[in-house]
Amino acid sequence: MLTIYLDSHSNKPYYEQIYRYIRDEIRNGHLACHEKLPSSRGLAQHLNVSRSTVDTAYAQLVAEGYIESFPKRGYFVSQIDELLNMVPVAYPPVSAVEPQEEAFPWDFSPTGADALNFPDTYWRKLSRECINYDDGTIFRSSEPQGDMGLRQELVNYLRQNRGVSCSPDNIIIGAGSQYLMMLLLRLLGKNSRIAMENPAYMPSYYTFQSLEREVIPISVDDHGMSVEELQKSDANIAYVTPSHQYPLGVVMPVSRRTKLLNWANYEPDRYIIEDDYDSEFRYQGRPIPALQGMDQGKKVIYMGSFSKVVSPAVRMSYMVLPDSLMARYREIFKTFPSTVSRLDQAIMTRFMKEGYFERHLNRLRNRYKARHDVLIRELKQFKDRVRLSSINAGSYVVLEWTGEMTEEELLEHARQEGILLYPLSRFCIVPTFRMYPTFLMGFAQLSEEELQQGIGRLRRVWK
Amino acid sequence: MLTIYLDSHSNKPYYEQIYRYIRDEIRNGHLACHEKLPSSRGLAQHLNVSRSTVDTAYAQLVAEGYIESFPKRGYFVSQIDELLNMVPVAYPPVSAVEPQEEAFPWDFSPTGADALNFPDTYWRKLSRECINYDDGTIFRSSEPQGDMGLRQELVNYLRQNRGVSCSPDNIIIGAGSQYLMMLLLRLLGKNSRIAMENPAYMPSYYTFQSLEREVIPISVDDHGMSVEELQKSDANIAYVTPSHQYPLGVVMPVSRRTKLLNWANYEPDRYIIEDDYDSEFRYQGRPIPALQGMDQGKKVIYMGSFSKVVSPAVRMSYMVLPDSLMARYREIFKTFPSTVSRLDQAIMTRFMKEGYFERHLNRLRNRYKARHDVLIRELKQFKDRVRLSSINAGSYVVLEWTGEMTEEELLEHARQEGILLYPLSRFCIVPTFRMYPTFLMGFAQLSEEELQQGIGRLRRVWK
Repeated sequence: MLTIYLDSHSNKPYYEQIYRYIRDEIRNGHLACHEKLPSSRGLAQHLNVSRSTVDTAYAQLVAEGYIESFPKRGYFVSQIDELLNMVPVAYPPVSAVEPQEEAFPWDFSPTGADALNFPDTYWRKLSRECINYDDGTIFRSSEPQGDMGLRQELVNYLRQNRGVSCSPDNIIIGAGSQYLMMLLLRLLGKNSRIAMENPAYMPSYYTFQSLEREVIPISVDDHGMSVEELQKSDANIAYVTPSHQYPLGVVMPVSRRTKLLNWANYEPDRYIIEDDYDSEFRYQGRPIPALQGMDQGKKVIYMGSFSKVVSPAVRMSYMVLPDSLMARYREIFKTFPSTVSRLDQAIMTRFMKEGYFERHLNRLRNRYKARHDVLIRELKQFKDRVRLSSINAGSYVVLEWTGEMTEEELLEHARQEGILLYPLSRFCIVPTFRMYPTFLMGFAQLSEEELQQGIGRLRRVWK
Repeated sequence: MLTIYLDSHSNKPYYEQIYRYIRDEIRNGHLACHEKLPSSRGLAQHLNVSRSTVDTAYAQLVAEGYIESFPKRGYFVSQIDELLNMVPVAYPPVSAVEPQEEAFPWDFSPTGADALNFPDTYWRKLSRECINYDDGTIFRSSEPQGDMGLRQELVNYLRQNRGVSCSPDNIIIGAGSQYLMMLLLRLLGKNSRIAMENPAYMPSYYTFQSLEREVIPISVDDHGMSVEELQKSDANIAYVTPSHQYPLGVVMPVSRRTKLLNWANYEPDRYIIEDDYDSEFRYQGRPIPALQGMDQGKKVIYMGSFSKVVSPAVRMSYMVLPDSLMARYREIFKTFPSTVSRLDQAIMTRFMKEGYFERHLNRLRNRYKARHDVLIRELKQFKDRVRLSSINAGSYVVLEWTGEMTEEELLEHARQEGILLYPLSRFCIVPTFRMYPTFLMGFAQLSEEELQQGIGRLRRVWK
């Protein structure tokens, strides 16, 4: 008979203690295969517990396959003939701790957005209202492409502000650009060869790499991606940033746009991915209209995101697909639900509908313009040792250093002053020749005072 | 001289009206290539507007590449030599309107969850608190694998309730199972061949199909996936539901689990994907422990989701990766940010930490058990014309009809009574032989009364 010590002070009920004891006895071989267990009545008497307690323990052992029950004969230990032969394999230790990064009081990151930009008060207000006055809608599944209300707001916003022409049916809202790119690459097919501007928006390059896609770097001239070079390549997808080339800041003129669209129209499987990164920010004149509007969305896939203009905590990006790809999307991804939180979608819809988004963008544009102007003013004090380009738009300017020092010297001197700089060389898929050391000077996450101080320090060490 | 009609009542400023007029004249060829534009001073006088208005319009036209400025010579229309030659291509019309589905008062869907299950009150309360008393954290980016606090709660929950053994460093929280599967398949490599149980959890089968992965169907016997058949296949990945096989409800006993783990340990690139779908719900005894706990997470990828137990509006699933795959994840996806809303993560963390989740699961389990019991009681009135299996767990039972009628007749009779049924044949990758018509009878989204009424109606027509 099994003698099991039952602990009445344990938080585990008796049946579970019995179950665990027998399970472990079978696991370590003390109870051998085919061995008969005591009847539940007998064990219950022996342990002074109710019979149903033992029955429950036995039922669990049966359910998990440790013992088997044979009518009229009783319970027997199952045949678990193979021992688990775990082969010990050594893997590199997993550590989530990243090496501590040096802290820089002046970080001129070209991609950084100011955390203070977030429309905190309005967002909280709308969140509260969505939660308090909701009829239960925000707790149901979203439409797979994203809530219709939000897609309609996006259509209006994109038409009025970006010249994008589309219907809500062609919009897909997803949890971040990487996710949307995963969907898109599947739609474009395994054998797509992607041409990217070089220098490039590296996050997209890394995404393509992560997803094992071949990338063909194409030079950028004063008009953006070279269509001649693109034509000579065997790429069928061109990834471009026509409104404000990242990182050089070139605007693609209408003549180059036409060439590029004609390239795409030449073959049915050619497409253009227009990443409309940071195009909301122009400090002179009107925004440059999107390429997508020029071809009425036949060949251009338009991509945008709220993470930069609202908050990276709000995981929401969108893409506008041409009808041809939309049909494929409906076919391939028909079982894929939306990846975006319903609550965030509800908040964002009202944020746009009630004018908060536009006001927020205007506020942000004014703040960025002020910072942009301070940065330019301060950098002009370097006189003819610097040349500036990519001005009047976006969240950084491009600085060429025509003075004596090398890129390494400039970086090192800046570092010693607590200034983190981003040389253009880090934004190249393959090295490009530059006459002078070139830096991307981001101004979005530094205040006017910090910009003034930072460039002031730079002037002391850059000669 | 250009004569432009300026509308003082338009909501468009004058500079924009001038810009649009000239742009359209260039586009439609009325202003030819290389043609000289009037000087800004001259045009300003002619139109009776300020010179800066014309300057702004010209600057925009220059920025977009319609005209060029030559110092001392003036503005000229750019060469836009290629006309945009759009090839009209016919695509199937895109329509978001799905064919209207017939409404069934009694829908025995095996996957449906009751919308009323959502812990609405508590979730709203926690949402409000997270929004009101937050220090700004919820508006910053999340850690790429998901917030550490939430991953720690998950570790505790999975250890205590599912016997899963892992560290927070091995957990990845993502926006839905499909997204996580996309990441996982990339980690497992292009040439992975995936074995699936047949009959199968079809949503996962569709996901594999959407992502162009080969699936090898493997038979299911009383102990789950046949490891003999698996060994004969050239699959290197086995996708299984060991705690409660979907759809047959078989629990994989410990002997089969050992065999399966030994199969995986035989080759370094073999892995097991354990989908722990609905394992929270057992109405007798303890939950069946996860397979992952048996090998200490060396070969088993454990996947779970909150969408079924909390709400499909909360887009949150998770996977536990073995160290070997975790190292690969860190390498490949180092630039991929989290896909889950920070606010939802904050709410979920508190939902778990403060015991709401456990109470919610208990409440749900009790409600499902009551429905399960009513369904079984009602179905037993069919006497020996039905055989039930997959009972005491999950959100459906499996019904075999041993009476005279065919599957089509049974379905059609039910349909006429307003009853929607789900035959097992729809859950098969390749047809499997069944002696009798078999149905999955879901009870999660019907009340006890509805279940009683529905089965009552079925008894009138199923003879």
